[in-house]
Amino acid sequence: MTDFIPTPTTAPPDIVRSAYVELVVSDLAASRRFYVDVLGLVVTEEDDEAIYLRTFEEFIHHNLVLRQGPVPAAAVFAYRVRSPEELDHAVAFYTELGCRVERRAEGFGKGVRDAVRVEDPLGFPVEYFYDVDHVERLAWHYELHNPGALVRIDHFNLVTPDVPRGTRHLEDLGFRVTEDIEDEEGTIYAAWMRRKPTVHDTALTGGDGPRMHHIAFATHEKHNILAICDKLGALRISDMIERGPGRHGVSNAFYLYLRDPDGHRIEIYTQDYWTGDPDNPLVTWDVHDNQRRDWWGNPVVPSWYTDASPVLDLDGKPQTLVGRTETSEMAVTIGADGFSYTREGDTERGFKLGEQL
Amino acid sequence: MTDFIPTPTTAPPDIVRSAYVELVVSDLAASRRFYVDVLGLVVTEEDDEAIYLRTFEEFIHHNLVLRQGPVPAAAVFAYRVRSPEELDHAVAFYTELGCRVERRAEGFGKGVRDAVRVEDPLGFPVEYFYDVDHVERLAWHYELHNPGALVRIDHFNLVTPDVPRGTRHLEDLGFRVTEDIEDEEGTIYAAWMRRKPTVHDTALTGGDGPRMHHIAFATHEKHNILAICDKLGALRISDMIERGPGRHGVSNAFYLYLRDPDGHRIEIYTQDYWTGDPDNPLVTWDVHDNQRRDWWGNPVVPSWYTDASPVLDLDGKPQTLVGRTETSEMAVTIGADGFSYTREGDTERGFKLGEQL
Amino acid sequence: MTDFIPTPTTAPPDIVRSAYVELVVSDLAASRRFYVDVLGLVVTEEDDEAIYLRTFEEFIHHNLVLRQGPVPAAAVFAYRVRSPEELDHAVAFYTELGCRVERRAEGFGKGVRDAVRVEDPLGFPVEYFYDVDHVERLAWHYELHNPGALVRIDHFNLVTPDVPRGTRHLEDLGFRVTEDIEDEEGTIYAAWMRRKPTVHDTALTGGDGPRMHHIAFATHEKHNILAICDKLGALRISDMIERGPGRHGVSNAFYLYLRDPDGHRIEIYTQDYWTGDPDNPLVTWDVHDNQRRDWWGNPVVPSWYTDASPVLDLDGKPQTLVGRTETSEMAVTIGADGFSYTREGDTERGFKLGEQL
Amino acid sequence: MTDFIPTPTTAPPDIVRSAYVELVVSDLAASRRFYVDVLGLVVTEEDDEAIYLRTFEEFIHHNLVLRQGPVPAAAVFAYRVRSPEELDHAVAFYTELGCRVERRAEGFGKGVRDAVRVEDPLGFPVEYFYDVDHVERLAWHYELHNPGALVRIDHFNLVTPDVPRGTRHLEDLGFRVTEDIEDEEGTIYAAWMRRKPTVHDTALTGGDGPRMHHIAFATHEKHNILAICDKLGALRISDMIERGPGRHGVSNAFYLYLRDPDGHRIEIYTQDYWTGDPDNPLVTWDVHDNQRRDWWGNPVVPSWYTDASPVLDLDGKPQTLVGRTETSEMAVTIGADGFSYTREGDTERGFKLGEQL
Repeated sequence: MTDFIPTPTTAPPDIVRSAYVELVVSDLAASRRFYVDVLGLVVTEEDDEAIYLRTFEEFIHHNLVLRQGPVPAAAVFAYRVRSPEELDHAVAFYTELGCRVERRAEGFGKGVRDAVRVEDPLGFPVEYFYDVDHVERLAWHYELHNPGALVRIDHFNLVTPDVPRGTRHLEDLGFRVTEDIEDEEGTIYAAWMRRKPTVHDTALTGGDGPRMHHIAFATHEKHNILAICDKLGALRISDMIERGPGRHGVSNAFYLYLRDPDGHRIEIYTQDYWTGDPDNPLVTWDVHDNQRRDWWGNPVVPSWYTDASPVLDLDGKPQTLVGRTETSEMAVTIGADGFSYTREGDTERGFKLGEQL
Repeated sequence: MTDFIPTPTTAPPDIVRSAYVELVVSDLAASRRFYVDVLGLVVTEEDDEAIYLRTFEEFIHHNLVLRQGPVPAAAVFAYRVRSPEELDHAVAFYTELGCRVERRAEGFGKGVRDAVRVEDPLGFPVEYFYDVDHVERLAWHYELHNPGALVRIDHFNLVTPDVPRGTRHLEDLGFRVTEDIEDEEGTIYAAWMRRKPTVHDTALTGGDGPRMHHIAFATHEKHNILAICDKLGALRISDMIERGPGRHGVSNAFYLYLRDPDGHRIEIYTQDYWTGDPDNPLVTWDVHDNQRRDWWGNPVVPSWYTDASPVLDLDGKPQTLVGRTETSEMAVTIGADGFSYTREGDTERGFKLGEQL
Repeated sequence: MTDFIPTPTTAPPDIVRSAYVELVVSDLAASRRFYVDVLGLVVTEEDDEAIYLRTFEEFIHHNLVLRQGPVPAAAVFAYRVRSPEELDHAVAFYTELGCRVERRAEGFGKGVRDAVRVEDPLGFPVEYFYDVDHVERLAWHYELHNPGALVRIDHFNLVTPDVPRGTRHLEDLGFRVTEDIEDEEGTIYAAWMRRKPTVHDTALTGGDGPRMHHIAFATHEKHNILAICDKLGALRISDMIERGPGRHGVSNAFYLYLRDPDGHRIEIYTQDYWTGDPDNPLVTWDVHDNQRRDWWGNPVVPSWYTDASPVLDLDGKPQTLVGRTETSEMAVTIGADGFSYTREGDTERGFKLGEQL
Repeated sequence: MTDFIPTPTTAPPDIVRSAYVELVVSDLAASRRFYVDVLGLVVTEEDDEAIYLRTFEEFIHHNLVLRQGPVPAAAVFAYRVRSPEELDHAVAFYTELGCRVERRAEGFGKGVRDAVRVEDPLGFPVEYFYDVDHVERLAWHYELHNPGALVRIDHFNLVTPDVPRGTRHLEDLGFRVTEDIEDEEGTIYAAWMRRKPTVHDTALTGGDGPRMHHIAFATHEKHNILAICDKLGALRISDMIERGPGRHGVSNAFYLYLRDPDGHRIEIYTQDYWTGDPDNPLVTWDVHDNQRRDWWGNPVVPSWYTDASPVLDLDGKPQTLVGRTETSEMAVTIGADGFSYTREGDTERGFKLGEQL
């Protein structure tokens, strides 16, 4: 993946935040049970083909669209922009990059009107929109909140083969890098980038791509995340927990990774930090630091490295994958050829007591 | 281990609760750093040979004694009894059982006076005491509490080869079983027994014994336990976390297992339930239920099954181990010959997505 | 109230814990909305006349009975005893005291069978029972828990004119005093007494009595109590919050006081401390210590001192009140004639900055 | 206060966030005990005259300067701007408004260099800066965190007589209103305005001004705020708690108000909501809504309405106060002439059961 993505001469659209994702699901009823009955997302609107869901503190129409379809995949990653005029910038920016661009004044689904969708240079389906229906912000409606209340959408995490290439492109789009994972030879394994002043709106994870690694929703407190785990146990679907709960090194947030009925990965996330100052210091993690992904050194399960969801092109067809050519984070940290350490310089034993069978 | 432990004709000592443990440690300064500087236990008294520690809500002299010694081991498990007269019952009870019994009016260490120590029929060194120095209960001294404040000692967990044999003996001592883990053939893998009205004062874990599996301290809330993990990460000693944090199936408590500098296992534990009614229902877990040890189905690491601390006889020499002859919980649940399920009857896949390398 | 309650020669019933209360309510539907829809207590059984409710960790039939009736009142305070035989002790104990005693093998309501009810020497309707239906303990049923989940009944708080007189009687019944509030002249304003090893099963508050000051339910954590407040705000019934949330000085517990639709006072309570050792130290608070009732010095509202529910005799008629003759806690601490201090010896300003209009 | 503040023709400085406050304190040692020993703010630098403090997640030199001085007051409210060039905009903007403007390339204290200070049209001393020393962000240093860890500065709250006049001026500066409190006649009692995408960087409270109502620091979770209260109780300085803890109606945040040794008011605040969308809906509260200031309806103490700190001019002299001419929030909501309601239309009883003596 050495082809260079040029920096357009036209200004990028002014992105406010990551706003919603549309997921294609194979069984809409099963997905509804997971996202509505188990996780407690709020239904703004639904029909036989799609369900529009939002978090408790959201005032726009939706943060997640579930759409019945033949192949589970991520259909679009949507950013809210600062004004209607930014859609013109989006069209110009991606047109200059030679990307496929589609604009619909009536929107591509419910709730959102004028919107631009593109196949971005990394192969991801991306939407930009401003014009959206307002709905009631349920922040004060505590009578509706569940113990694991999801209050915001936080970020997208995308898999791409060449992280620096992707990072430069997102910087062209106006993103700033807040944290990354590197090795001593300069290989970059992942990078976190933000528009809103938190650790990220979008992260890039090195791997065969384009694929969706996960999307994340935020809770207010850590006990809310633990309550989700407790409920999954009570429903005897604890095997939907893939990894965590735990404390991230990167981002310093408390986290949990779930897999939905189609295997789409959902993170529940809380309490990262302010990054909105223009000189916010970049935090670089050594890929061999065993606390980078889990501050407590708890193991990252292999599936977390290997599995991800296909993404669709604007015709709804899965994008072809391009393989990562650089070393993978899993290979350099787990198993026979990998190593990691708890204390730098202390390379004898990177894993915890008795972690391996 | 088929020899029968007879039920004495004399009444057992009336035990109030598990009160303290004495651990032999190989480096008193290193252990002090762990228990005092990291975990924040309160020093009641100390000298070059021993440190007497207590939790924030304790009013007796100590809950933990660390004693410098050649071989890391558990030197004694001490129960508080209801009155001074109960020591006579202890002497008579164990004498009838043919156990070695030693009584010292001046006590075996600081803080505690008249006490009886025995080598119990399972091979454990056990102390009974009533007469103890009172110290200030620091419950209201919030200016001293740390984010992971340990407020009580909760229980002992002991490894013994034949769990039903041990359980019957503890029932003779006045304990009641609250929960256990069995298989479909009636093999018992572990049992939880209580004097105080919580899930346990003492649990028996099946394995080569006598050994100490762990001792447990309680926090008020779950975030206190998470704060301990965060601090271990900050100190770059996250490899002292062996397992967790998580929610137990058994006991319904929130938990964390640490290993101290000598490998002694310490559990941090909070929020089990009231068991004080005489007809409190026994909860029996299937050994193949993947949520029995962790309600969220997170894996039990092998070391948690295999490692335990030696226990000493009354001369301070390690007790000889007797091997478990029945199947081990690890063997029947992990690896090639084991299986476990998340949903009963659903035996296809007992582990989570991508858990294995 | 100087008449002496003699100590019976017969042994008292062996009480395990405070187990349930029956409240007469004026509008069963309104009370159901409060206890079931708002607080989330679990309905074990109900009909047109009564609703039987329990907490999430309870395994006996009920912790609260709501019964439609003409005059809001507390109809009975029920203790669970250690065995069926203890009912004979209860009959003998109260008969010797000259109290009215009634025993019904079929019980006085649903769920409980053989039971003894008495009008105790303080004028309270008290039930003793052992034989009770078991129901499912919903501790692990996290899919049913609400953000403010009530997990246990904790205690009864009763108003009686002469606290030392009442305390001596409860000590005859086998209770132990854990904390009390006194003044420098030895007047006792309130006392906390326990059977189970927490701060109390029953507290006595000085005032015109017999009346019920409140009953208390426990949550696991402090945020659960805050969630109840948030929900009451969302439902626009925040005026059901009478006092708190706050931290008690006495008991060191975190608390909230609500008033139900009939004005019955309900406390939500969490995290007091272990008191089960026989020599558990008594904690005595100075009535003028402004942190005794609220550790943060927040004011006790007058209604909390003055209001309480009538209690019924065994015929269902309200008991006649006897007036307190000693000084009232409200009079000596609030208003023109009262004073209180934050720092002992610092009597200039006992209240906080700007607390008074 | 009817004089109009014109909108400058020059662009305002691009403000990133409220960044620090300098408070003049009468006893530096006493203030150090409060802010460092009790609240746990981190000392970046200190000498005999001043202490520079920061929160655990801050990476710039300070969020609070305590400076020894003759009259307790707020000396400056400092905003961070997006680039060094914004200082030129600040100079031009305020010069056009006829305000006193002072620029110092070396800064006005330690840590910050090139800075502009102004006496703004509302009479407040305001600083704009970009160039600042970076220090270690202690977010991951959990070994240093206390139970009530303050992790960010959140906002300033300023008292001004004419809230709409002040609001229009802050809008000229680029702020957006997120919430306000009004009555049915259009009188505005307070307004919340933001640059960063939370409820506010700066709020205006109606009253005699210019004065500082309070500054606020954020914690991660609600229990951190409760821990501060518990510690104040333990230190027997609970009378430093002025109001709360509680849940705000406005902002939906969890809060606590303290008064420092000089009476400067400090808020501890957590968990408001995202406001960063350009069309974020304004939330307007009725001044008579008894849940607007405390969602649980707990009373606002009079001192909270009446007390505030003087602010200094650029010579360090207290600004002359201008009186509010419109009705005060206290007068219309508390006492003989005020009223408030829990349920709109339900004007009978606005306060809680027994709240008044």
